[in-house]
Amino acid sequence: MSITIALDAMGGDRAPGVVVEGAARALRERPDLRFLLFGDEARIAPLLERHAAVRERSQLRHTDQFVANDARPSQALRQARRSSMRLAVEAVRAGEGDAAVSAGNTGALMAIAKIVLRTLPGIDRPAICTALPGRRPVVMLDLGANVGCSAEHLVQFAVMGEVYARTVLGLERPRVALLNIGTEEIKGEDVVREAARLLRASPLQMEFCGFVEGNDIVHGVVDVVVTDGFTGNVALKVAEGASRLYSDSLKEAFGSSLRAKLGYLLARPALSAVRERYDPRRYNGAMLIGLNGIVVKSHGGTDAVGFAHALLSAARLVEGRTNERIGAELRALAGSLAAAPRAVAS
Amino acid sequence: MSITIALDAMGGDRAPGVVVEGAARALRERPDLRFLLFGDEARIAPLLERHAAVRERSQLRHTDQFVANDARPSQALRQARRSSMRLAVEAVRAGEGDAAVSAGNTGALMAIAKIVLRTLPGIDRPAICTALPGRRPVVMLDLGANVGCSAEHLVQFAVMGEVYARTVLGLERPRVALLNIGTEEIKGEDVVREAARLLRASPLQMEFCGFVEGNDIVHGVVDVVVTDGFTGNVALKVAEGASRLYSDSLKEAFGSSLRAKLGYLLARPALSAVRERYDPRRYNGAMLIGLNGIVVKSHGGTDAVGFAHALLSAARLVEGRTNERIGAELRALAGSLAAAPRAVAS
Repeated sequence: MSITIALDAMGGDRAPGVVVEGAARALRERPDLRFLLFGDEARIAPLLERHAAVRERSQLRHTDQFVANDARPSQALRQARRSSMRLAVEAVRAGEGDAAVSAGNTGALMAIAKIVLRTLPGIDRPAICTALPGRRPVVMLDLGANVGCSAEHLVQFAVMGEVYARTVLGLERPRVALLNIGTEEIKGEDVVREAARLLRASPLQMEFCGFVEGNDIVHGVVDVVVTDGFTGNVALKVAEGASRLYSDSLKEAFGSSLRAKLGYLLARPALSAVRERYDPRRYNGAMLIGLNGIVVKSHGGTDAVGFAHALLSAARLVEGRTNERIGAELRALAGSLAAAPRAVAS
Repeated sequence: MSITIALDAMGGDRAPGVVVEGAARALRERPDLRFLLFGDEARIAPLLERHAAVRERSQLRHTDQFVANDARPSQALRQARRSSMRLAVEAVRAGEGDAAVSAGNTGALMAIAKIVLRTLPGIDRPAICTALPGRRPVVMLDLGANVGCSAEHLVQFAVMGEVYARTVLGLERPRVALLNIGTEEIKGEDVVREAARLLRASPLQMEFCGFVEGNDIVHGVVDVVVTDGFTGNVALKVAEGASRLYSDSLKEAFGSSLRAKLGYLLARPALSAVRERYDPRRYNGAMLIGLNGIVVKSHGGTDAVGFAHALLSAARLVEGRTNERIGAELRALAGSLAAAPRAVAS
């Protein structure tokens, strides 16, 4: 059984070029993939001419509507009923695609996915989840879908993140933690503390490790870091910003004198290995997790290498039966939550 | 008029050694400083013997009580009425010290400072505020004192952070922004949006720039970044963690082959300049801002170079009449808040 990915061919800063080239790259690694491309035929067909392998494994469906990068989610929902983004998500609902991938507007994609696919039973709110570069890869969620979260939401995120780590990172028993601002129980927000209590009391086979702090995220202390979408988004972007500042400063330093330039030439192979290890393109592709269907968001500014990674990540999520696994965990959790005593009796 | 700094000589991982050595270093730059040292005479007196310059400018007051690094704030308050930390803060209230500096337990220091000094009129909650390394230094608050904040709290933080940037960074007109997860008005938490509305409506001469995202913090887009203590603490520690990971990885890379080692030797002067520029010790010393008195928290694990920076930062805060300036801004703000129409009529 081959995997079919429905593609929003018009989403992202350099669409549809990067989308088709990314598909070509993904096919080199996974020749069994198939694609369902939604977008402007006049622009996509010539690209397929240049990428015969993609053309052979794809079906192209024309639409002249697409979601602008700066569109408001509500706009994207009301207008553009036949946008390339929406059609890709609808293909998943219809069973024509096993997953949808878009590099378009995140808010619009989430809004469309929620309306079209609905959330999984037992999930109140879908989250944005991905693996991030660190001393070892670390799964983090929510990265920006939900600004205010209850303890129950965080518990649901923990369940989903754990399954994601098993599926995408291939870990047998991922270690899961809640992001907090101190390892002592006395610190932190009430919701975070309550979520920890619920996770400790749960009958899930999850390896719950309590709390981690911001600096632990990249240091491989745990495999899954759970937080609300506001903090998660800030953390993600601070890490990106700090890495960028560091690498820019190095570049300046290496260019600052002839001696430094020579040093760079000598150290280049070793430095390239570091750069490759933390290359954000290798981590591209965040799952909108908690929906009845697999939807992956690619970074809007990525190139074909990055887009291919998002496609391969989507394929792994399909093969790993991610949503079936989440469903099974949630059923176990629902039983326990119904039975467990609460901190505050109602 | 010389500045007298009250020192918790027993606070921090390597106290009292680092405290006395830090004082010696600070004196080289600012020979006009005076110190009031609180702590174990038997341990401090021999150190002063080795640092005659510090001894000459110091008064040593013995106490055998100190706050443990892992003490709970409530413990530190109830017990240890004569802890070195508390006595240092009390010296500020009594007017014997112009500022108190401690490298001890942050939670305990904040709890003691709130009880002993009380908050400034117009401030509901003190915050933790410091300048962070970035493309240019950026002031950020709250870094962990308040996990849940209202819009009014964020406005007060903005006022305090702006004054801090004027005093410590010497900026004439600091640009102030609220941390958010999108630059569009549609995103973000209600409290952040409401704080933006209040700041826009305020009559303060503040250059309010709206929202910034996590990646903007280190890139010098604005001079002051305002957020709640949970997000601020996570952001601070993620930045530290990412920088650490990057520098560790580089160290490994430069040691991975003879060729890379040679490259490092050539590039070392240029790389040292980068390291020095972002050296966290140069940024050591966070103000517990919003109190009737200047209290500066040094990192507990810093060395004498870092501790000296905390002392010099405290001296600048005294000279800059930071609290008087904050008071003046708050009086202007209080007038405007009383007069301004609210979004929701009461």
